[in-house]
Amino acid sequence: MHHSGRFFASLLCFWVICQAAHAAAPDPLPSWNDGPSKQAIVKFVTETTRQGSPQYIDPAERIAVFDNDGTLWSEQPAYFQALFALDRVKAMAPQHPEWQSRQPFKAVLEGDMKTLMASGEKGIVEVIAATHAGMTTEEFTQSVTDWIATAKHPRTGRPFNEMIFQPMLEVLNYVRANGFKTYIVSGGGVEFMRPWASKAYGIPPEQIIGSAGKVKYEIRNGRPVLVKLPAIDFVDDKEGKPANINKIIGRVPTFAFGNSDGDKQMLEWTAAGPGARFMGIVHHTDEAREWAYDRKSHIGTLDKAWDEAMQKGWTVVDMKKDWKVIYPWQTP
Amino acid sequence: MHHSGRFFASLLCFWVICQAAHAAAPDPLPSWNDGPSKQAIVKFVTETTRQGSPQYIDPAERIAVFDNDGTLWSEQPAYFQALFALDRVKAMAPQHPEWQSRQPFKAVLEGDMKTLMASGEKGIVEVIAATHAGMTTEEFTQSVTDWIATAKHPRTGRPFNEMIFQPMLEVLNYVRANGFKTYIVSGGGVEFMRPWASKAYGIPPEQIIGSAGKVKYEIRNGRPVLVKLPAIDFVDDKEGKPANINKIIGRVPTFAFGNSDGDKQMLEWTAAGPGARFMGIVHHTDEAREWAYDRKSHIGTLDKAWDEAMQKGWTVVDMKKDWKVIYPWQTP
Repeated sequence: MHHSGRFFASLLCFWVICQAAHAAAPDPLPSWNDGPSKQAIVKFVTETTRQGSPQYIDPAERIAVFDNDGTLWSEQPAYFQALFALDRVKAMAPQHPEWQSRQPFKAVLEGDMKTLMASGEKGIVEVIAATHAGMTTEEFTQSVTDWIATAKHPRTGRPFNEMIFQPMLEVLNYVRANGFKTYIVSGGGVEFMRPWASKAYGIPPEQIIGSAGKVKYEIRNGRPVLVKLPAIDFVDDKEGKPANINKIIGRVPTFAFGNSDGDKQMLEWTAAGPGARFMGIVHHTDEAREWAYDRKSHIGTLDKAWDEAMQKGWTVVDMKKDWKVIYPWQTP
Repeated sequence: MHHSGRFFASLLCFWVICQAAHAAAPDPLPSWNDGPSKQAIVKFVTETTRQGSPQYIDPAERIAVFDNDGTLWSEQPAYFQALFALDRVKAMAPQHPEWQSRQPFKAVLEGDMKTLMASGEKGIVEVIAATHAGMTTEEFTQSVTDWIATAKHPRTGRPFNEMIFQPMLEVLNYVRANGFKTYIVSGGGVEFMRPWASKAYGIPPEQIIGSAGKVKYEIRNGRPVLVKLPAIDFVDDKEGKPANINKIIGRVPTFAFGNSDGDKQMLEWTAAGPGARFMGIVHHTDEAREWAYDRKSHIGTLDKAWDEAMQKGWTVVDMKKDWKVIYPWQTP
């Protein structure tokens, strides 16, 4: 190679490197409008990951926890796991002819939500037990996988694993790219989430934490299996969230995102740790593109946590103002 | 640079690369004698991580679980957590003058093990409750950290975090270097292990699984804390191990190491998964350098799991024959 050739090659290399460096820093949150919420997220991540910053967080302490229902995906007109349970009753009905005349199953099969609701907590527990217990963990996983592959949301007609929030996917990717280990900490069932959430959110099964039923270890046909029992092992909601984070992750997170009073304790426990902390709440304000609900809602009630957020200066995301799109399929 | 210079530089580079490649593959298990146990471990790791091998395990499924007591560290003359509890009774005695005359605390303070043992399970539970509950998780962590920093093993005079097995440290490092995610799955208390085990074994807190007590979320002086209650949340032993692995890790391990009947279910559950699997048992056969015990021992009973291991061809490590050294301080 001539010297002049080398010179131009160097120039070319320099240009390529510059382009690459430029390309490596696009907007990490393109679905967020430029407002206080986006600015707070970017400011926190930038300041806590820059060596020498007074806000610097050691990589080992970069633990980010996210609620699921209402924070990472929608939760209306009912928790999607409840819709799964109702669909399972219908799918399992041929094996249970007695359900045709037995409540609350009869109500489910007839789509009679009024009677189902009137059956109260006892009725709901019966439906959950029938659809979430009495099978091996492998069989349950298969039933979730099948449902996610076929069921459609009643309003959008989309599969439920597409009812996830594009702006929150960007937050997950953004904090991960900056060394945060992302966890789901949900009141939903851990075994209901894992079959689809790993792929949907890019979070491995062991970083998905949720409510759980008891299981029984059993040898079936010479092979050990775990059989799901109709009994609660742990409810991962409210005070249960810090308890479960302590038990499973073993330290206080430095970043937490929720959307309801069920996340209040997780958020305030995160806030109480030493050093820089980020606490965020997704406020459902968009009746047109998603749903609008807060203090008076039975699902995802946001009341006390909202007051605390305003009092303590936590980031409250205004879905309508802050988000350019809601779901991934709406990205331009 | 002259062409001849370049040629020699190339040669030098080649030599450096060869050396580096050579240096990068030293014996991964130098404290293991070359016998069937070492060969089985190396064969498994080599065959499951070589692209194109029929035994190949996808990196996402490389989950390796290790029992702690008797597998990664010694457990004689009593589980070290029991020795911690006894020491804590002595340390806490000044704040509990009533213990001087109240059993089983009186027996502990007087070193009267016979009376303590005679107090049975009820007595032991009282000691555990007094030393493991009624404080915040932070205070408990501090008490473990203090104990590990000061307590000495009655036989070796060494701090307990040095009573770990050098050959098993090498196995942990070896499988990790080959993409396995290492977990502790122990009957011991998760909050007793985390303060020292992360550093001792190179395993982060969230990969340490163990038994746990219930906690209560509370606001103390305006700050949220978790207070440890005198109630069991989960016993991570026997059938509890597969149940907890399923709940926390969310899949069946591909590599498992234990030492007692408490690990039997974890080992057989691991064995039942599809594809290549490694099941190992540490058999305590070295009365001179460690301890020798199995079927008749009250601590770390190895009886049914041993039979199953022999029947199914699992790897049974003969500590006396297989290990050149036991503890890190004995390495040449």
